[in-house]
Amino acid sequence: MSSSYGESLRLTIFGQSHSPAIGVTMEGLPAGMPIDMEALQSFLDRRAPGQNRWSTPRKESDAPEFLSGLRDGVTCGAPLTAIIRNQNTRSGDYDNLKNCPRPGHADYTGYAKYGPHRDYTGGGHFSGRLTAPLCIAGGICLQLLERQGIRVFARIRSIAHVQDDAPFTTSVAEKPFPTVDDAAGQAMVQAIDEARRDGDSVGGVVECLVLGAPAGLGDPMFGGMENRISSALFAIPAVKGVDFGDGFAAAALRGSENNDPFAVEDGKIVTATNHCGGILGGITDGMPLLVRAAIKPTPSIVKPQHSVNLSTLEPQTLQVHGRHDPCIVPRAVPCVEAAVAVALYDAYLTAQREKEL
Amino acid sequence: MSSSYGESLRLTIFGQSHSPAIGVTMEGLPAGMPIDMEALQSFLDRRAPGQNRWSTPRKESDAPEFLSGLRDGVTCGAPLTAIIRNQNTRSGDYDNLKNCPRPGHADYTGYAKYGPHRDYTGGGHFSGRLTAPLCIAGGICLQLLERQGIRVFARIRSIAHVQDDAPFTTSVAEKPFPTVDDAAGQAMVQAIDEARRDGDSVGGVVECLVLGAPAGLGDPMFGGMENRISSALFAIPAVKGVDFGDGFAAAALRGSENNDPFAVEDGKIVTATNHCGGILGGITDGMPLLVRAAIKPTPSIVKPQHSVNLSTLEPQTLQVHGRHDPCIVPRAVPCVEAAVAVALYDAYLTAQREKEL
Amino acid sequence: MSSSYGESLRLTIFGQSHSPAIGVTMEGLPAGMPIDMEALQSFLDRRAPGQNRWSTPRKESDAPEFLSGLRDGVTCGAPLTAIIRNQNTRSGDYDNLKNCPRPGHADYTGYAKYGPHRDYTGGGHFSGRLTAPLCIAGGICLQLLERQGIRVFARIRSIAHVQDDAPFTTSVAEKPFPTVDDAAGQAMVQAIDEARRDGDSVGGVVECLVLGAPAGLGDPMFGGMENRISSALFAIPAVKGVDFGDGFAAAALRGSENNDPFAVEDGKIVTATNHCGGILGGITDGMPLLVRAAIKPTPSIVKPQHSVNLSTLEPQTLQVHGRHDPCIVPRAVPCVEAAVAVALYDAYLTAQREKEL
Amino acid sequence: MSSSYGESLRLTIFGQSHSPAIGVTMEGLPAGMPIDMEALQSFLDRRAPGQNRWSTPRKESDAPEFLSGLRDGVTCGAPLTAIIRNQNTRSGDYDNLKNCPRPGHADYTGYAKYGPHRDYTGGGHFSGRLTAPLCIAGGICLQLLERQGIRVFARIRSIAHVQDDAPFTTSVAEKPFPTVDDAAGQAMVQAIDEARRDGDSVGGVVECLVLGAPAGLGDPMFGGMENRISSALFAIPAVKGVDFGDGFAAAALRGSENNDPFAVEDGKIVTATNHCGGILGGITDGMPLLVRAAIKPTPSIVKPQHSVNLSTLEPQTLQVHGRHDPCIVPRAVPCVEAAVAVALYDAYLTAQREKEL
Repeated sequence: MSSSYGESLRLTIFGQSHSPAIGVTMEGLPAGMPIDMEALQSFLDRRAPGQNRWSTPRKESDAPEFLSGLRDGVTCGAPLTAIIRNQNTRSGDYDNLKNCPRPGHADYTGYAKYGPHRDYTGGGHFSGRLTAPLCIAGGICLQLLERQGIRVFARIRSIAHVQDDAPFTTSVAEKPFPTVDDAAGQAMVQAIDEARRDGDSVGGVVECLVLGAPAGLGDPMFGGMENRISSALFAIPAVKGVDFGDGFAAAALRGSENNDPFAVEDGKIVTATNHCGGILGGITDGMPLLVRAAIKPTPSIVKPQHSVNLSTLEPQTLQVHGRHDPCIVPRAVPCVEAAVAVALYDAYLTAQREKEL
Repeated sequence: MSSSYGESLRLTIFGQSHSPAIGVTMEGLPAGMPIDMEALQSFLDRRAPGQNRWSTPRKESDAPEFLSGLRDGVTCGAPLTAIIRNQNTRSGDYDNLKNCPRPGHADYTGYAKYGPHRDYTGGGHFSGRLTAPLCIAGGICLQLLERQGIRVFARIRSIAHVQDDAPFTTSVAEKPFPTVDDAAGQAMVQAIDEARRDGDSVGGVVECLVLGAPAGLGDPMFGGMENRISSALFAIPAVKGVDFGDGFAAAALRGSENNDPFAVEDGKIVTATNHCGGILGGITDGMPLLVRAAIKPTPSIVKPQHSVNLSTLEPQTLQVHGRHDPCIVPRAVPCVEAAVAVALYDAYLTAQREKEL
Repeated sequence: MSSSYGESLRLTIFGQSHSPAIGVTMEGLPAGMPIDMEALQSFLDRRAPGQNRWSTPRKESDAPEFLSGLRDGVTCGAPLTAIIRNQNTRSGDYDNLKNCPRPGHADYTGYAKYGPHRDYTGGGHFSGRLTAPLCIAGGICLQLLERQGIRVFARIRSIAHVQDDAPFTTSVAEKPFPTVDDAAGQAMVQAIDEARRDGDSVGGVVECLVLGAPAGLGDPMFGGMENRISSALFAIPAVKGVDFGDGFAAAALRGSENNDPFAVEDGKIVTATNHCGGILGGITDGMPLLVRAAIKPTPSIVKPQHSVNLSTLEPQTLQVHGRHDPCIVPRAVPCVEAAVAVALYDAYLTAQREKEL
Repeated sequence: MSSSYGESLRLTIFGQSHSPAIGVTMEGLPAGMPIDMEALQSFLDRRAPGQNRWSTPRKESDAPEFLSGLRDGVTCGAPLTAIIRNQNTRSGDYDNLKNCPRPGHADYTGYAKYGPHRDYTGGGHFSGRLTAPLCIAGGICLQLLERQGIRVFARIRSIAHVQDDAPFTTSVAEKPFPTVDDAAGQAMVQAIDEARRDGDSVGGVVECLVLGAPAGLGDPMFGGMENRISSALFAIPAVKGVDFGDGFAAAALRGSENNDPFAVEDGKIVTATNHCGGILGGITDGMPLLVRAAIKPTPSIVKPQHSVNLSTLEPQTLQVHGRHDPCIVPRAVPCVEAAVAVALYDAYLTAQREKEL
């Protein structure tokens, strides 16, 4: 099913940009887990729009309402559903898009799939706004993983042509602009500003690190951690590539360079290097897990673009109105953390089945 | 489940490198589809080892035996199972690996997950040999897709540092070395030869093109074509990255460069460029679908490597014996086609449900 | 997953008796289907409590709020979520049940499974109230099936020892007490009244008929219509048995009596009798589908009962307060229709995949 | 998927009556479990035909060949596949059935679903022979459950009009005719003999008891033990009804009779009676689990029957040749055990996920 994910922890995300609400149902959460609502809200705030000059000025508070699954703030074993009301569900901003698909958006493919009844307003179910319920689920998983000593954090690795190649070992979530190298961060902000001034947009790469994951998570073949994580990450609109460890760069290495030699540290088997990004044969090896997601530039730009009228097939010049981020990469950082956390916690619960019987 | 894939067409791959047989079960194949056994065998032969100097000299014919699902060579609606017997199931080559995990392999993670009872011989269920049943399934899907006018073909895009950047528009499967630019192919073969001479190995990138896929395949969020295809591709051992269209390169573009303007051609909506690789919002737009898989260098190399004894935790020097490909990229080409074909045909069948009721 | 159902149409039911809301998410609904909200509400009203003297006097209007999946009242292809607010979420009625499980209820097994954090108030996720979202989903499916000429309707077949053996060929939903034979209905009402007077309860059997289902729905083995329908029916609390056609009675017949001879009617293959209840080998044969569900007597009775304190393991006498139906069979009638409709429409969509390619 | 079952343990059954082989793949078996092959064969022999005068005289040894999933007879974590070769795959017995569906069989519905390409020989994938791979899977699960102190055994509860109402507390598998009351067994054998003499057949009811299952297995709603078990049982051809505990009889009881009072025994919560059959709210309560399956009379009878030619739609008199059981109930006994064991072990593994994290 398109909007469901997971094997032991099952997520279903629902809602459209302009429907009464968006939300998520999580099945399979163990009972007895207190949810720290304040921490969850802080996490959601990192994704919310309107916080600074590189995101859309529309201000919308993403405060989830929990409809089920908790008793006194603690999971009770029943499916958990949380929703966020859409406050602005009848925007006229989108009237001109009914028959005129925006380049780089799902407007045309949604029409091709669902026909004239698809919800075109605000991108419907394809809207980036649907990453909010993903972040609710991910924020909960982050808390549950942390209780197991597993921490997940992401940074901006690049924006446009600016790279942050500083070693990534700890959270940068507290920083206003989540890079390791602040000078690189400055240059990235500048690249975003330039794009906005030009009525244009830029993309980038988000890198995510997982510390503390035990060896043995994930499964062979289609159930590998790479399959599971990529499957979750590509649910974030605008992600066009995913790689692990050295990833695409590994394709240019020799085996003797890329293989991570085994060693023993504190009585535990480790690898001396970590080109594989903590995953061998789809299964975690106990080393830091490293994954990157390539984010395409925001398709909604002010510059006029060529489109086609869906009814008349006449060429049309499109100018996207409304408020749009010139760069969604900063807001994608918590989304990547969320997707990785969901995939990881699902694999974690699944691995419980294999515990000694 | 780890070894299953698909929603409408369900694949289950079984077998270990040294178990009596390996195979695949396919559920959900429509009835009434003749399978061209000769074409299937030709396809499998492209993956089979021992064909030339850049693959392992072990000669094994991958001739599938069909146990079920056919009547007189035509699908009958029942689950189809095909197996390949393992001819060489008691190799002493692997005795020294029982307690000594090979760097870059799943030997250690399999041990971490399954304990001492995992099948370590020849990599067990993690073996690259398990791509043979994937290719049976994929080869069948390729035939069924072709009947719908959908063609899937892959090429070697790079090996080590050698790139083939020639435009990719048609099959190169007939070539002994499947590149578009034969000069680049020559240089790649040379890079492989050098690695072999050094007792080392090289990796590369495989690129896959799909022509003729209609608009409307795939689903939003977790059911997008990117999610589906990456989920299948990462089942191929050694794949460490997957991207679509401009992929990671798109992260450095501006929106005005990356957005594909809509146009009309022969009364059909098309895009003037194809940076998105034929997928918007997870759904095909009717343009060529383009995906790349990064393949790490073969981890089995002749050069001595550092490992650790799993029982004693003593450091150990490992020299991998047996016959191994210095580069598996050429043999990965049909595997990538197979994985993409399976994902696509599954999405195709799924889209049937949405047909006018 | 426990609270999900379906292959092509995926249902997830969430909520507890006393959580802020209960609801359902439906994935896989085709786009372009108008939902008749009035008809849906009428259907839900048949299940709602407080309507007459044989159901609980608690009055609660089950008016669903649609959060997603519709645009202007028409399905748009995105997951549909509808919720019903719980109006009475902090009842003190259940305080004495925290440590004292009610016989015949899930209080103890919920505790055994989820521990002290399970939601014991009002039965939590196990409450009969969760059939309301099932009826939302089922009511929608009933409308979609009707558009295909498929009608689903149930009757009370028996209550306590009173049987209604009149032939069942058309809907009795309009009747205040849904039997075919009104005299039998009178006797049933009397049996319920007697039970209530005694502080006790009675059970019964609901029978469901499907007219107009084409031959070819359902799949072999685990995907048979019997598997699919029983799997949905047992989700209704209190259902303890399900049979099809002659069902348990068929076990006493001879083959020559039970086999339904084939014949031709109006150029169509039919069976002269219908002992099989319209299903052979798990697949519909085009004849009326007939299924029965045995409903145990309401476990909540006024009579004092023996229980055990979960903390102290001391014996305890329990008197269930609150308002409870002396017989839930009448309200179970639309629930059975809902469960059958969901199973049938899911099978219907699944069969679309097999349409000529 | 039609031929797959399970959540944590995933079964896929393949094969047709006359295909080269039938078999099963099991995913999710924990590693490190030795399989007792002799015990498994003894279990399979109970289902095999040709053992006595009330089963078909065709002699076929159901000796499984294990293709994968084991190393030295112990599960290794990889998917386990076992097959049984069909020895008699080109029987002319079925030529006259190509266009003439047997009443009570899936011949017509298979045609309605799959069209002329369905495998009609011997019932194809619908054949009762497909219970052999179910028994391989079930036989393995029985062993794994036994290691957890959980025992599953079934008896014949009735055949035709003969009932065995003796209390059922222990295995009767060793008996040549598996009833508790041997006098009832004799009368059943006589009823079978009479049916055979008349060229007819009889059905019956199989009852299955599970001892030692801990409280807490199963899930609410669609994941209840009733849903899971019925879903597995209806995969056995000829099963037309399933009920639990007092089942259909409970529908005639009052709440005060049907509710099982809680009590304490040896410091453990038990119920004083067991009308619920060990399941409340879909979840086991630690008491014996009791389930019954109604088996219709064998549809293949010698008596001439009315059918219709599928091509010409002309009426046709059909006389079924070949060798058929006048009563399959005795052979269904191990099949019921197998289905229940599979459902139970799957629920058992699933419950592992909820173990304290």
